[in-house]
Amino acid sequence: MATPKKKTSAQILAAFKKTGARIETKGRVKLKDKAGFSLYYTPGVGVASEHLAKHPEDAPKLSVKKNSVAVISDGSAVLGLGNIGPYGALPVMEGKALIFKELAGIDAWPIVLDTQDPDEIVRTVIAIAPGWGGINLEDIAAPQCFEIERRINEALDIPVMHDDQHGTAIVVLAGLMNAAKVVKKNLKNLRVVISGAGAAGAATAKLLAAAGVADSIVLDRGGTIYSGRPDLNASKQELAHLTNPRKVAGDLALAIAGADVFIGLSGAGALQPDHVRTMAEHSIVFALANPVPEIMPDEAKKAGADVIATGRSDFPNQINNALVFPGVFRGALDNRVTSITQAMQLKAAKALAGLVPHPTATRIVPDILDKRTVRAIAQVIR
Amino acid sequence: MATPKKKTSAQILAAFKKTGARIETKGRVKLKDKAGFSLYYTPGVGVASEHLAKHPEDAPKLSVKKNSVAVISDGSAVLGLGNIGPYGALPVMEGKALIFKELAGIDAWPIVLDTQDPDEIVRTVIAIAPGWGGINLEDIAAPQCFEIERRINEALDIPVMHDDQHGTAIVVLAGLMNAAKVVKKNLKNLRVVISGAGAAGAATAKLLAAAGVADSIVLDRGGTIYSGRPDLNASKQELAHLTNPRKVAGDLALAIAGADVFIGLSGAGALQPDHVRTMAEHSIVFALANPVPEIMPDEAKKAGADVIATGRSDFPNQINNALVFPGVFRGALDNRVTSITQAMQLKAAKALAGLVPHPTATRIVPDILDKRTVRAIAQVIR
Repeated sequence: MATPKKKTSAQILAAFKKTGARIETKGRVKLKDKAGFSLYYTPGVGVASEHLAKHPEDAPKLSVKKNSVAVISDGSAVLGLGNIGPYGALPVMEGKALIFKELAGIDAWPIVLDTQDPDEIVRTVIAIAPGWGGINLEDIAAPQCFEIERRINEALDIPVMHDDQHGTAIVVLAGLMNAAKVVKKNLKNLRVVISGAGAAGAATAKLLAAAGVADSIVLDRGGTIYSGRPDLNASKQELAHLTNPRKVAGDLALAIAGADVFIGLSGAGALQPDHVRTMAEHSIVFALANPVPEIMPDEAKKAGADVIATGRSDFPNQINNALVFPGVFRGALDNRVTSITQAMQLKAAKALAGLVPHPTATRIVPDILDKRTVRAIAQVIR
Repeated sequence: MATPKKKTSAQILAAFKKTGARIETKGRVKLKDKAGFSLYYTPGVGVASEHLAKHPEDAPKLSVKKNSVAVISDGSAVLGLGNIGPYGALPVMEGKALIFKELAGIDAWPIVLDTQDPDEIVRTVIAIAPGWGGINLEDIAAPQCFEIERRINEALDIPVMHDDQHGTAIVVLAGLMNAAKVVKKNLKNLRVVISGAGAAGAATAKLLAAAGVADSIVLDRGGTIYSGRPDLNASKQELAHLTNPRKVAGDLALAIAGADVFIGLSGAGALQPDHVRTMAEHSIVFALANPVPEIMPDEAKKAGADVIATGRSDFPNQINNALVFPGVFRGALDNRVTSITQAMQLKAAKALAGLVPHPTATRIVPDILDKRTVRAIAQVIR
């Protein structure tokens, strides 16, 4: 990778090797003596088992189900790296588990799947669900991800969220609310171009529409998505109905001319400085592909963008799911929410944006380590 | 349950409720600042992901796979409580995860399954395997458990052990080696009666045979298992070939008359004092059903048994898998063992017995909290 970074790849790998696992387990009770064993293992545990056999609804009071989230991926769409399989996905899921604990006190564990068959994924997640308080699906490719999430959500009575979709959509909407303030434009009047019609792009387009953004255009590799384009799958047909009211048919250069906002949820290098130069005045560029953004911030700046965000920790304005998923699941677990609705997602975006009441070009969202964030989001997930 | 216990069921439930989860996760690195995020999440994590996509064999160096074990049950045979489903199983699996950490420093997490279909269990466990360093199957009913373990073991390159089978067999053999010393009898000449032909009973019969015990009889609900009994499934036919050389056909009363050893791996109340009275002099009674043993120790004592053991923490001689599974998986993870062979199991039993060089009637195995145990077993799992 040709990314500028403070540490070289070799240094990063060395740090991961030195650490080994980035998370571990920890006993919450001590087995110091026979009394501890008798209480928390046998024979004591038999009492809890008999109780839960009769009253499974008490599992969230008596077990790990109280505070646990499985972070599950099939490795089919990892970061901007693509289909790199379960082992490629593992470091990301483990990183999310670490963030869950550090930011929200949630006990999450990475589970990477040796299958990319939608039916098999659905069956597997449902089969392992009873012991978890929530399911965070992650880095599963579109369009399968939509059906997978829907079927799992319908089958289970615990919250299920495909974070690439909804976590991304929430944090993008929050960032856009504040970026619009910075450039003194009305959110609903923005002309928005979304590069990428995968999990994140599709969910973001839907949530922006729900928030009142009337003019957005989504692009996939075939160009703009519009009603009547012959090659659209079901998910993209839905997008065509919901977006692109001017029926712009063409490539990114055509779509972005005069646009107020570019939202990159596609891949490295998708946006050129020349594209930015054709945008409306006081333009907003969210280049969110990880680890390599669609355009590097300094290039976007030079080409005239006013507000620039990436998904990374090493630039200002980090628009990253990590601002969202810890709070969403904290709220869902605490408030016994069984499904994360679009109404909750809109409230979560507002709550997140509200943490920066006076946004500036280099501060449209709270810092990822801002301790207020989890609580602000958690309290609207109900 | 009519068990004598120091705490009432209500007190135990209250303790579980107060604790909620008995295990949690813990970060092994800190995300104190942007630098931590950049290194351990994005963009840094992309380097580890790209590396593992190309070199999945390095997952045990760079991820949770280094030290993690999934404790998996379908809830079909939980303790001596029977088929009480995934929620009934959850407290036991969570307790085992706690023991894994406290005794062996292993990061284990409970996974309970919403299916009892063998094909589905095999598919599910294989599907979630990539992120784990080992798989501990638990409380899965016989005879499905034999096929389930075999198929998963064959499919995966990480250690897989059905603890009810092999953990039990190892600890019973260790206890029996030392009990034989106490009563001054030769292990190989013992006449052994095993009550229960489930996972634990079958595996114990096999390991005792491998250790040279020539005369053992296994009983199921239909009485003694012998070659030619018409109603035997494949697993029991195998037992019939391996055991019962005198072809004793009948009930427990017949089988136990003159026996040196009773090993209870069945359920509460299976052994009556009158049975014990007919055993050979200096008899050995392992009443291992949990939480309620086949006979209470004081009754067995009064009826004449010399050495008595149970599976519980609140009596002397706790013959419990917890003496074995932490060390077996510690060794398997440390020594990159992909399969726990019978040769390793025999060595593990010897290593465990060797920790009590001068056994007595009330001390045939080490204390469950004896810190030497994990290391002694781990070093022979290679």
